[in-house]
Amino acid sequence: MGKKKAKIAELKAKIRLLKADLAAAQTHTGGVSPLAPSVFPDLPRIGGVRFATVAAGVKYADRDDVMLAELTSGSAIAGVFTRSATRSAPVLDCQAKIGGSSDEGAAIIVNSGNANAFTGRNGTEATAIVTKAVAKALSLPEMRIFSASTGVIGEPLPHGRMTAKIAELQDKLSADDIASAAKAIMTTDTFPKGAGAEVSIGGKTVRIAGFAKGSGMIAPDMATMLSYVFTDAVLDQVELQAMLESLADTTFNAITVDSDTSTSDTLMVAATGASGVDVTGSEAFRDAMHGILRDLAHQVVRDGEGATKFVAVQVSGAADNADAKRAARAIADSPLVKTAVAGEDPNWGRVVMALGKSGAKADRDRVAIRFGPHPVAENGWVSPDYSEGAAAAYMKNAELEITVDLGLGTGEATIWTCDLTHGYISINADYRS
Amino acid sequence: MGKKKAKIAELKAKIRLLKADLAAAQTHTGGVSPLAPSVFPDLPRIGGVRFATVAAGVKYADRDDVMLAELTSGSAIAGVFTRSATRSAPVLDCQAKIGGSSDEGAAIIVNSGNANAFTGRNGTEATAIVTKAVAKALSLPEMRIFSASTGVIGEPLPHGRMTAKIAELQDKLSADDIASAAKAIMTTDTFPKGAGAEVSIGGKTVRIAGFAKGSGMIAPDMATMLSYVFTDAVLDQVELQAMLESLADTTFNAITVDSDTSTSDTLMVAATGASGVDVTGSEAFRDAMHGILRDLAHQVVRDGEGATKFVAVQVSGAADNADAKRAARAIADSPLVKTAVAGEDPNWGRVVMALGKSGAKADRDRVAIRFGPHPVAENGWVSPDYSEGAAAAYMKNAELEITVDLGLGTGEATIWTCDLTHGYISINADYRS
Repeated sequence: MGKKKAKIAELKAKIRLLKADLAAAQTHTGGVSPLAPSVFPDLPRIGGVRFATVAAGVKYADRDDVMLAELTSGSAIAGVFTRSATRSAPVLDCQAKIGGSSDEGAAIIVNSGNANAFTGRNGTEATAIVTKAVAKALSLPEMRIFSASTGVIGEPLPHGRMTAKIAELQDKLSADDIASAAKAIMTTDTFPKGAGAEVSIGGKTVRIAGFAKGSGMIAPDMATMLSYVFTDAVLDQVELQAMLESLADTTFNAITVDSDTSTSDTLMVAATGASGVDVTGSEAFRDAMHGILRDLAHQVVRDGEGATKFVAVQVSGAADNADAKRAARAIADSPLVKTAVAGEDPNWGRVVMALGKSGAKADRDRVAIRFGPHPVAENGWVSPDYSEGAAAAYMKNAELEITVDLGLGTGEATIWTCDLTHGYISINADYRS
Repeated sequence: MGKKKAKIAELKAKIRLLKADLAAAQTHTGGVSPLAPSVFPDLPRIGGVRFATVAAGVKYADRDDVMLAELTSGSAIAGVFTRSATRSAPVLDCQAKIGGSSDEGAAIIVNSGNANAFTGRNGTEATAIVTKAVAKALSLPEMRIFSASTGVIGEPLPHGRMTAKIAELQDKLSADDIASAAKAIMTTDTFPKGAGAEVSIGGKTVRIAGFAKGSGMIAPDMATMLSYVFTDAVLDQVELQAMLESLADTTFNAITVDSDTSTSDTLMVAATGASGVDVTGSEAFRDAMHGILRDLAHQVVRDGEGATKFVAVQVSGAADNADAKRAARAIADSPLVKTAVAGEDPNWGRVVMALGKSGAKADRDRVAIRFGPHPVAENGWVSPDYSEGAAAAYMKNAELEITVDLGLGTGEATIWTCDLTHGYISINADYRS
C-alpha cells in the first residue's frame, strides 16, 4: 500500500511538471533550447569563400536543405571525421580526398534530411554523382569536392534532387550568405550555431568564421554533427591539418550529449589565404581558432536533445591527461550523474561511482569533488564543509561545473555535457506514439 | 508556430501516457516491475547453511534489513567483486579474505539501506566492528566473516544498530529462511530474486539455491547488485573460485541496466559439502550453476529501473569473443537503442550506429541485423526482406532479441539489457521534486 501510494504521488508530481512544461511551451516562442544563445552572431566576411543555399526537397519541404561553399584556388583544407566503423559514404569520400593538392579551388556541398549512411554501394555511387556534378559545374577537379549528408540512416540519397539544383546554387553564390548556410544544414537542431573572430597578427587582420549543426550525437533517426570553419589566413595544408587534429581533442572531441557517436561526424577547416597574412606558428591565430571551435562545440551541447543544463566536468590531478579525460568522460556520460543534474540534486555519490568505473587511476582517499565553488567530498568522504542546502541551491543554475581533483599527478581534462531529462526520452522514444 | 504546436501535442501525449500509468498504478498491486516472475521460486534446502534476518533500523523502518547466513565448517567460499576504483569498505574486506582456509565455519552478514561506500577510514572501521562481533558470537575466525552493505553512498554505517542485533540473529538461525534473506537485502528492488536447482550426479542429488538484489547498477542514492548462491556440493575453494570467475563472465558480467557500475557489486558462492557428493569436474553441476547465475542475473535486468522490455543482444561472427562482447555491450548500453526499444521502434539505424562506435572490428557490407526473426539489414543496407510493419509488431513484445552477425569470424557474445524509459528518468531525476 505504501508503495502504491508513493507511485501515485510520483505520477501526480510528474503530471504537474508536464503541465508546467506544457504551459511554458504554450507561452514562449517555440521549441528553442533554453540554453541557446540569444542571437546568431554577426560573423566576419571571409575573403575567398562564397556560400549558397537552396530548397532541393531532399526530405524537408519549404526550407533550404542543401548548402554549397565555394573556395578560391590555393585554399588549404583540413578535416577530422568520425572514427565509427560504420561511417557514411560521404565521410569515406572526404577522408580519401583530404591532404591532396591545394593549388586548385575547392567546394563543399552538404545536404540535410538524409545521412547517406549504411546505404551500401548505392551510397558510394550517390556521393560520386553529386560531387562529380559539382566539379563539372564549377570546373574543379573531383578531388577538391567535399560533401556531407546528415539525416535519416539507411535510406537512398535522392541525388537527382541535388544535382538538379547545382546551377541554381552556382548562380546564388555570395560572400555574405554564411548565416543561411548555417541554417540549411540543420536537422533537429533548435537553433543555428555560428562563431567568428578577428585576430590582429603583426598589425594585419585575419578573420575566422564557422558554423555547426548537431543536437544529440544522433537525433531521432538522424545523424549528426557537422561543422565548417573558414579563415582568410595563409596556412599550409599540413600545418592546418595538424592544428585541427590537435584542437579537435579539446573541443569537438570533448563534448558528449548521450555517448552515442554518429556515422557522419565531420569537422572541416578551410584557409583561403585571401588576407595575405601568413599565420604559420602564430599562437594568436591558434588561440582564436581554438576559441571558435570550442564555442561551436559548446553550442552543440547547448542544443542537446532535451537539455536544460550545460555542465563542464573538469578533472585535474590525474596520473596523465588520458586518464583525466577517461574520468571526465565517465562522469559526463553517466546516466545517473546526468539524471541527478536534471533533478538539481547535488548527488556526489554518483560522481564517485562514475569515477570508480572509469578505469582511471584513483585513490579513494585522495579524491576531492566540488560542485561549482562548493566542496562536497574530500579525503575519501563527505567534506566537513559540505552544505546540502548550498549545493542544492547551486544546482538550480543552468550552467554548472563539476570539478574533481584526483590528487595523483598533473593530468587534466574538461568534458562538456548536458543533463538527461524526460525531454530526451520523449524525443527519442515517444515520437511514434 | 509549427514547432510550438508539435511541442504541445507531444506534451499532451505524454500527459495521456502518464495518466494511463497512474491509472495502472492505482489498480494493480503496486510498483512491481511488469517483467517480474509471477512468484518467488520454491528453493531447495541446502544442508550446512542457516539463515536469519532482523529489523535493525539501519535506515528502513518496519522491515528486516540485516541478513546473516551461517556456513558449516569446511565450506568452500568463492567471490567476485566490482572492479570499481572507489569500491566500498566491505568489498575491500571480502577481497582480502577470499581464498583463505576452508577448515572452519563461516558467515556472511549483509545490511541494506547504507552502502558503507566512500566513507573513508570510518567505513573500514565499521566493517571491522561488525565482522568482529559476528566472529565472536559464532566463535569463528574473523577471516571467515564476509560482509556487504547496500544503500546510500557516503553516510556512516550505524554499526551499533547491527551489533546490537547479532544475538537475536544467532537465535533465529534456520535452514528454511532463504526467502526472508532474499527480501532483507532488497533496497529499491520491486521483487525478491531467487533461483534454485537439484542436479543428479552419479545417482546422488546435489542442490543449489541462491538469491540476488539489484535494480539498476545503482538505484537512487543507492548501491547495488548483490548475489549469494549456496550449494551442498563438495568442491575445493580454488576450483569453486575458478568456476565462479568463468561463469560470471556470461551471467552477471553480461547484464547492463544503465552502464553505471556500482561501488559494491558482490557475487559469492558457498559450497558446504553437506551432500557428500564431490562435483569436481562435473559438467552437469557446472551447467546447473551456470543456469542459476544466469537466472538471477536476468532477474536483476527484469527489475531494471523503469524497465518495460527485456532485451537479449546477441552478436556472432565477430573477430573474437572479446570483440563480440564489445559490440553487444555498445548496443545494449546505447541510450538511443534503449529509447528506440522503449518506443517499440525497429530503428536498426541506431544499432548500426552503436556497432560503429563500439570499437569492434566490423565491415559495413558484411553486417546482418535481425530483430527477433525479422531480417532488417544485410550487405551494408536495409534487407530486401525487411517489413516495417512486421518489425514494428515484433517490437511490441515484452521480451526481445536483437541479433547481429558481423560476418568476420567465430566470436560471439550475448548481453542482456532493458529499455530506457520515462520511468528511469522519474526514479533518478524527479525524486527530489
